[in-house]
Amino acid sequence: MFARVTSISLIALATLTACQQPETAEQMHARMQMESDSARVALEAKAAAFVEAFNAGNADAMAAFYAPDAVLMPPDMPAVMGRDAIRGGMEGMLAGMPPGSVFALRVLDVAANGPIAVDRGEWSTTMPGPDGGSMEIRGKYLVEWHRIDGEWLIVSDIWNGDAPMPPM
Amino acid sequence: MFARVTSISLIALATLTACQQPETAEQMHARMQMESDSARVALEAKAAAFVEAFNAGNADAMAAFYAPDAVLMPPDMPAVMGRDAIRGGMEGMLAGMPPGSVFALRVLDVAANGPIAVDRGEWSTTMPGPDGGSMEIRGKYLVEWHRIDGEWLIVSDIWNGDAPMPPM
Repeated sequence: MFARVTSISLIALATLTACQQPETAEQMHARMQMESDSARVALEAKAAAFVEAFNAGNADAMAAFYAPDAVLMPPDMPAVMGRDAIRGGMEGMLAGMPPGSVFALRVLDVAANGPIAVDRGEWSTTMPGPDGGSMEIRGKYLVEWHRIDGEWLIVSDIWNGDAPMPPM
Repeated sequence: MFARVTSISLIALATLTACQQPETAEQMHARMQMESDSARVALEAKAAAFVEAFNAGNADAMAAFYAPDAVLMPPDMPAVMGRDAIRGGMEGMLAGMPPGSVFALRVLDVAANGPIAVDRGEWSTTMPGPDGGSMEIRGKYLVEWHRIDGEWLIVSDIWNGDAPMPPM
């Protein structure tokens, strides 16, 4: 009988250690802060690799950052749906860049909860100016990332400029 | 002794029912689908109320949808930081609308996980055209919402047009 009591106590103990209590609001916010910090490191690396692909003129590599059903929302044209169409959109964008242009991204804020992250930041493009100098256009973006099979992929990507586009 | 066994069994049973197992990937996706569906209902109601405030020319009511530290990212101008500055931005936007303009929003997709939601959709404005008829401008948006003290508030809001803005 005593042995049975002990085994039941062990079951209770095992149950207590194997399971987790529902998360409190404080625990949730602490966890989300950790996940956001961790996602920011991952997404800053993604941004650097995307910039490298952009400045190398590699539309295939750029499209690989997007989920198969991603939506690209460029300014002054309709949305582009799906990775294959996005690859075509990237080719068009690269073809429209003046030679010598240098693209850059700056991540400003990342909020993540589990497999969803929102990344807000700034973009800029430095290009040869009309007088032999250089000019910069810049703007802002918001990107929705989902972690799919362990990898962060862009699901929605939208940006616009800080000023109307200058005549080229 | 028998009473003691029973009380330990009851403790084990109570522990089993009070705690929760770590979520499996399948359970997480099912939960997120439910939360996204539920957030979509809430955010469609928010969108309808925002449209009502916009078409009533009520900048105060529009600003109330934003978190105190929200970031508004309108096209062709710099980002606007904070609810007070956003209220001013809304006043400017309302002042720039031709009389008789009608604004509309359409939510296309909502992805939520706990207190974070991303809302992607379309906007349109119908306004009097140059020939006495009406013209429509339209575009797309991405909005990051956080549920703060039980209420969904906009944290980041960006949009752009499907075509360059027509001359007014």
